[in-house]
Order: sequence, then structure tokens, then C-alpha cells
Amino acid sequence: EIVRKVTDFFTGDQTLKGKRILVTAGPTKEALDPIRFFSNQSSGKMGYAIAAAAQRAGADVTLVTGAQLGDIKGVTTVHVTSAREMYDEVIRRYNGLDAVIKAAAVADYRPENVSASKIKKSDGPMMVKMVRNPDILKELGRQKVKQVLVGFAAETDDLEENALKKLESKHLDLLIANHASDSFGNDTNKVTFYFANGRKQVLERMPKPQIAEEILDALSGLFEMSDSK
Amino acid sequence: EIVRKVTDFFTGDQTLKGKRILVTAGPTKEALDPIRFFSNQSSGKMGYAIAAAAQRAGADVTLVTGAQLGDIKGVTTVHVTSAREMYDEVIRRYNGLDAVIKAAAVADYRPENVSASKIKKSDGPMMVKMVRNPDILKELGRQKVKQVLVGFAAETDDLEENALKKLESKHLDLLIANHASDSFGNDTNKVTFYFANGRKQVLERMPKPQIAEEILDALSGLFEMSDSK
Repeated sequence: EIVRKVTDFFTGDQTLKGKRILVTAGPTKEALDPIRFFSNQSSGKMGYAIAAAAQRAGADVTLVTGAQLGDIKGVTTVHVTSAREMYDEVIRRYNGLDAVIKAAAVADYRPENVSASKIKKSDGPMMVKMVRNPDILKELGRQKVKQVLVGFAAETDDLEENALKKLESKHLDLLIANHASDSFGNDTNKVTFYFANGRKQVLERMPKPQIAEEILDALSGLFEMSDSK
Repeated sequence: EIVRKVTDFFTGDQTLKGKRILVTAGPTKEALDPIRFFSNQSSGKMGYAIAAAAQRAGADVTLVTGAQLGDIKGVTTVHVTSAREMYDEVIRRYNGLDAVIKAAAVADYRPENVSASKIKKSDGPMMVKMVRNPDILKELGRQKVKQVLVGFAAETDDLEENALKKLESKHLDLLIANHASDSFGNDTNKVTFYFANGRKQVLERMPKPQIAEEILDALSGLFEMSDSK
């Protein structure tokens, strides 16, 4: 098994040949003014690792990313800043896709008002009204025809409960859950797979490129199930 | 003149030998919860370039940074996240310093309340109360004995007016001003020097390492003026 995987890594086993896969990665940045923004700790490493592995496995890969980790050869990379830009770039490609793997940590909120010039500080406090960003994954679930949808949940509390809720409410095929402290900024992660059919798979801690391989193995399985229907 | 500078670059002209200089760099990040934060577009490139140039010129350099660009050989590097951490690290070293060059873009505000767990999103808007961070440069100006203080102003509007106000209110010896759009994320910048004695020096657009050399030339001049008093 290990020998097979190592061989696959170098030669490419082309298990995803012909599949059109979109991967999202990194954080989004939500501007408050031309200098200040609201964001999150996502590094983009997981999404980049998935995009690279999918490309090696023969897929036609588009990476929509809020992180800038250096473009991957053979992967169409689209750089975005805000959640709304990411929403637009993902949704308009959705019809032509076989799968979306949403590894990005999209900001749930953005400042309602974006100042065109730098906000001058004053002595007192400042209230910032944050409004909800569009929910990309929810919209993908709603518009879903045949696409396989893979989401992530990084939580600090009640991980399994939140994961199962997200799996169902977003109509995902696979939800990859981890504790936020195990992942953000790290080169490794410790994740659990929750499948729509109720199966649960607990993975040990491993490097993100190896997790990417596990995710694509799971995705191949989901494609096989889907094709045999 | 050019030959001298090129030679100096490689051999080190040691004009700052024995001087203890603290440089701050990068943005600060102000947590809202374990995942989300407020920050700004500063890359840290200017501060790192100044620290490297000061080290080459023979100074004893400490870099306090919110950016992670790779430590510089011979420079004591202190990594911080928030404005309050940067404040603590700078202020407690101040007594022993000959100069502070404050190239960091310190967040003026932080969320008043930091949640220990990830804030669950809800359907409606979210109000975030931001409170003022301590003003590092103002405190340095207040506690100033003999130290030379160099600050930066990145503005979107009324650049000269804001620069002159900051120069005076923070008791700076030199204020380096630029338009925000000329600097953030760029490898070059277009700056103007405003000195406490009223002198103004407009520099053409140049790479940040070259601006760093110009700043240290100006600093050497300020040390000479100070020593001859």
C-alpha cells in the first residue's frame, strides 16, 4: 500500500483524469479602508496541497485563492481578496465542474462600510458594523446537480456536532473537520472525515500534502459511487 | 558618490558602529477570536530593509516585527503579534537605545473583547467595538531623553499636513511620509523626509533597500548633530 502510494506520488496514477475540480484556499480579506482589513489565520497550505495533488492525479484543476503561496504548474490559479470576489469566481464556474473542494477559510462577516480613504483615528472607541458575507458553500449545495462537494470545518468547540450540522445543511458529500488549533499555520493537521452516508474516518496527524492525498482518495471513491448510480 | 555607496554596500562603512538601534516592522494583528483578526496591508519589507542596512553599517540592531520575512543574520529579531506586545517589547528596551526607527504599521484599534472560542456566525449583522491601542511612538516621544526618533506616515489624503502634525506631536527627529498606495505590498516606494528642524527632502521612487540606505544616511547626520551639541 505504501509502495503503491509512493509510486503514485511520482508517476501520477491519473485516477482523476478528465475530472474538472475547483479548489479554494486561504483566507479572505475584508477591507475596512484602503489600509485596514479583517481576516483570519488560514495559511492556504491545505488548499494548495489539494490542488497540487489533484493536478498530479490528472484532474483539470482551478485554484481560487486568497493566499499567495506561489502558483502551481498546470493549475489555473485565480487570485481573489474578498469573500464576494471568491463567491463570484466560484459560482460562475460551477456548472462546468465535477467537484468543488472548499478549503478556503472564507470570512463570514465584512465591514458594512468601506472607507475610500484611511480612517483617521480618534481618541475614543470605534464601532464597526459587520454584515454577513454570502455563504459560498451553502449556495453550491443549493445549486448542486451532480457535483461532488467537499467542505471543511475548523472549530474550537463541539467539533463533531458542528461538523455533522454543516455536512447536512450545506448538502456536502464529505466534510473534513479539525480543531482550529491543530491546523492554522501548521504544516500538519489532524482531521476526521464525515461522509454524507454516515461513515466516519479518523485520520492520525500527518503532513498536509498527505492529507491532500487522503482527500483525493476519498473523492475518487465518491466519483465511483456517483458514476455507478 | 555612487562608487562609494556601492563599495559601502559590500564592505560596510560602519558609520553606525556602536549605535544601538531598534527597528519595528510589519503589521500587528488584533484578535477577535482564536481565528479572526483585524490587521493592515503592511508587508514588513521597509522595516526589514532598514534593519539589514543598519546591521551592515555596524549598528547593534534589534528588530521587533509583526511580519515574518526570515530573520536577518546579526540582527536580534523579536516576533510579536499585537500592538500591545509590540509596545511592551519596544518600551522596555528604550532606555538602552540610541535610536528607534518605527517602520511598523501598528493597528490603532483592537476589538475590545477577544472571544476565547470561535464566534459562531448568526444571520444578522455583528457589532464589533474597537478600542484604541497604546500609541508606541507617542510614548517614545514622551519618554525621550537623548534617543533619535524616526517615524513613518502612510496616508491616503493630506499627506504633508498629516506628516508635519505627526512630526511635532510625537517629538520625532525625522518623519518619512508616503502615500499609502505607493508603498503597501510594493518593493519600491516614493517618500519625503521631514526633519524636526524644518528641512524637507523629496526622494524619487526607489527600491526599499535603497530608501533604507537614505534613511540611515539621514540618521547618521542626526547622530552627528546630536553628538556635537
